Amino acid sequence: MAQEDVFKKIVSHCKEYGFVFPSSDIYDGLAAVYDYGQNGVELKNNIKEYWWKSMVLLHENIVGIDSAIFMHPTIWKASGHVDAFNDPLIDNRDSKKRYRADNLIEDQIAKYDEKIDKEVAKARKRFGDAFDESQFRQTNARVMEYQQKRDALHERYTRAMQGPDLAELKQIIIDEEIVDPISGTKNWTDVRQFNLMFSTEMGASADGAMKVYLRPETAQGIFVNYLNVQKTGRMKVPFGIAQIGKAFRNEIVARQFIFRMREFEQMEMQFFVKPGTELDWFANWKQTRMKWHQTLGFGAENYRFHDHEKLAHYANAATDIEFRMPFGFKEVEGIHSRTNFDLSQHEKYCGKQIKYFDPQTNESYTPYVIETSIGVDRMFLSVMCHSYEEEKLDNGETRTVLHLPAALAPVKLAVLPLVKKDGLPEKAREIIDALKFHFNCQYDEKDTIGKRYRRQDAIGTPYCVTVDYDSLKDNTVTLRHRDTMAQERVNIADLNGIIEDKVSIASLLKQLQ
Amino acid sequence: MAQEDVFKKIVSHCKEYGFVFPSSDIYDGLAAVYDYGQNGVELKNNIKEYWWKSMVLLHENIVGIDSAIFMHPTIWKASGHVDAFNDPLIDNRDSKKRYRADNLIEDQIAKYDEKIDKEVAKARKRFGDAFDESQFRQTNARVMEYQQKRDALHERYTRAMQGPDLAELKQIIIDEEIVDPISGTKNWTDVRQFNLMFSTEMGASADGAMKVYLRPETAQGIFVNYLNVQKTGRMKVPFGIAQIGKAFRNEIVARQFIFRMREFEQMEMQFFVKPGTELDWFANWKQTRMKWHQTLGFGAENYRFHDHEKLAHYANAATDIEFRMPFGFKEVEGIHSRTNFDLSQHEKYCGKQIKYFDPQTNESYTPYVIETSIGVDRMFLSVMCHSYEEEKLDNGETRTVLHLPAALAPVKLAVLPLVKKDGLPEKAREIIDALKFHFNCQYDEKDTIGKRYRRQDAIGTPYCVTVDYDSLKDNTVTLRHRDTMAQERVNIADLNGIIEDKVSIASLLKQLQ
Repeated sequence: MAQEDVFKKIVSHCKEYGFVFPSSDIYDGLAAVYDYGQNGVELKNNIKEYWWKSMVLLHENIVGIDSAIFMHPTIWKASGHVDAFNDPLIDNRDSKKRYRADNLIEDQIAKYDEKIDKEVAKARKRFGDAFDESQFRQTNARVMEYQQKRDALHERYTRAMQGPDLAELKQIIIDEEIVDPISGTKNWTDVRQFNLMFSTEMGASADGAMKVYLRPETAQGIFVNYLNVQKTGRMKVPFGIAQIGKAFRNEIVARQFIFRMREFEQMEMQFFVKPGTELDWFANWKQTRMKWHQTLGFGAENYRFHDHEKLAHYANAATDIEFRMPFGFKEVEGIHSRTNFDLSQHEKYCGKQIKYFDPQTNESYTPYVIETSIGVDRMFLSVMCHSYEEEKLDNGETRTVLHLPAALAPVKLAVLPLVKKDGLPEKAREIIDALKFHFNCQYDEKDTIGKRYRRQDAIGTPYCVTVDYDSLKDNTVTLRHRDTMAQERVNIADLNGIIEDKVSIASLLKQLQ
Repeated sequence: MAQEDVFKKIVSHCKEYGFVFPSSDIYDGLAAVYDYGQNGVELKNNIKEYWWKSMVLLHENIVGIDSAIFMHPTIWKASGHVDAFNDPLIDNRDSKKRYRADNLIEDQIAKYDEKIDKEVAKARKRFGDAFDESQFRQTNARVMEYQQKRDALHERYTRAMQGPDLAELKQIIIDEEIVDPISGTKNWTDVRQFNLMFSTEMGASADGAMKVYLRPETAQGIFVNYLNVQKTGRMKVPFGIAQIGKAFRNEIVARQFIFRMREFEQMEMQFFVKPGTELDWFANWKQTRMKWHQTLGFGAENYRFHDHEKLAHYANAATDIEFRMPFGFKEVEGIHSRTNFDLSQHEKYCGKQIKYFDPQTNESYTPYVIETSIGVDRMFLSVMCHSYEEEKLDNGETRTVLHLPAALAPVKLAVLPLVKKDGLPEKAREIIDALKFHFNCQYDEKDTIGKRYRRQDAIGTPYCVTVDYDSLKDNTVTLRHRDTMAQERVNIADLNGIIEDKVSIASLLKQLQ
């Protein structure tokens, strides 16, 4: 199956099985906003718990906070978001559609690549085994022309984006004769900047309300609380502050389901270190974070680092952890060495000293910061994408199964009475009543056992037990394992011992040591 | 100590010990917005976990969701919030201050009560034991005059608020000669309606952005997802949907620390029932929710129901669970029988059928809804208020201690090496390394053991262990209990068994059965 089709199936599976619904679905949705359903919320909460505990429980020197979405507007001036958190937009006057100018140009660059690929493919077909691609690229006139055009365009575009030079971006679109994919015309407006922050008015004092923003990242909430946490928590550098929370960006082109949303959730940890040690800590956190991902068992080959060559103005090192999604390797986490940029800016804008006093060396300094920043929704998507399988069974049937890590699964155990009479439902509920304080159990008595297994497979439940007539006599049940579909007879009294450890977040945490 | 002073102390304790900071503190704060610090976030998360698990794990027929803050704007039209979620505001032209007209009039009503109280107190002093208050109230001319004026004002005010009649509200302010507490003048503007929802602009299509609101309650996110959850989760009426999330209200007068904030968090559960059974379920949920609160062990005498006499237009029964705060009995939870108002409104506005089909009776109907709605921040405040104590010790000293329920405490165990040498720190960390997967441990080696105990008392840590030279020989430690300050010698190997059960959320859940 093509990867695109797989992705479509995952999106529809998410809706059909209560993981992710389009927001405001009965009102035909709200673009680029999604709601988590009864299974999605549990999976998402488990991901958050795994991250939170890996930060806060496993590190003596990391604590959490929960700062508000509303913050003083000057914070976003200091952070650079008011002035520089923009997309360059352009309208087509005929289609009345709006585009990101940078996306239009990037698509144009990609078109040259497509043309080159086509030439290469044609030649490969013509010459067969005798085809030497690298020689072909260096000698074929058409390919060389495309390559030159592409490289020239790329260079011009990169230069224009610094600043950015909006008139030059428009000129590129004109020079490249880029047309609107809908109207097919070149009837473009000027390019202008569009800030990605949502704003609203707070208060209603007689002399006017205050313009505030919905935070576009949770990081600044950590920076402005850094001194309060350090002092009241008696933290010593190096130390970290972790936070999970919503952030908002008014994306013009939101894409790929929950991969890029206007309202999303971040798990960010800012680690404060002594200047000069930041690159060691950066290397250290790269390894720690990669291990966190790989502990989920999805295979090391599905992850890679993407080190940034071009760094943001505040960074002296940056990398992404990318995961293989059905639509290619994509960033799920960013790790950035942010220097002392943010704290220094806040010091400047708030007019207060927010330095750290080192009791050992008796010196004061502004700490450097290593940031680890992960999108909860992207992480959720990566887990769904990797876990989803349409498995061909020996008997020719297909079963749809989510191979979720047991610790992340929404439901840990389904308890199924063979029939809904003769005391079997009561026995099943007795089992649930004994286990439900420890993990999420689900009772299901409808349809055949086979159908009930399939339903649990589809939501990733790692264990099912079936209660039958023997259960009433000898207190045993059939325990069925999701991935292998193997069944075994076990004592009811042993169930907690078998299951609890394997489905707990602690089971993941222990592997991180 | 006066209750007002106690409250001030709690507020400053919250800041000093990393529970609650004013938001954007280094920028001198943002009115009515607060951040949770390193201890506050843990306490808040524990409260949320207790609620979530009590709903989702303990009820076969309750599931969770996590819907977005952004919703389709028509939803707030359907719910009535666009038209009717208003405060009547009035400005004083001299002070340039803005007030809620209803608050000004309510304060005026209270002034009559104060005058009456003063007369009664004077008379009581004069007549001593011979004083008969009820007779005095019925015969004293001045008291009777105040009572009449108060009752007349109350009646006129209540009538004006239905509608509301803004001109009449202004007329009351004029007739009562209410003056601005700051300028002392009666130079008032007209009264006008001010909607409490925050709004923002979403998207940037060429033909204009869309005005969307920050949800003022999480409930509607449940209602618009009710059918998706019911169908994909195969839920049968009666069933419930639980949700925890942020909500926003542009309060003009925000008061009492985190009790009334502009950004706050709700835990809401909407329970869908068959029409005609709603009042039984209402009674049922009243008891269930009260038990949830009282299981925290704060004493039944600190809770009471406040049944509503005047019902909102959508309700046919409503009550508050009130908790005794330092500033009086205050609502921490509301339980409402909302009828089918919300679902019917959405059906009307979205133009789709969202009825429930009952497979047993083969009939379709719009379920009735019982809502339980609790403010996380208020709950947090009630826990802090009840737990805070300045305890006089036998030796004359005072210790500040938070008697938090162990399951809610941010840190469960502090491990303290007697001295920071001779292998004691290593031994302490060994203990933490064995326990940290299960609960939050804190290491502290600074200052005397006594000071370290006090610090843990101040953040409500239920257990401390001290590692001394004997610990190296016989693997025992001194275990100290927060509330009694009793100390006992225990084996390190027994610590988990002693502590884990008592500090777990499951320990609370088991009491709910």
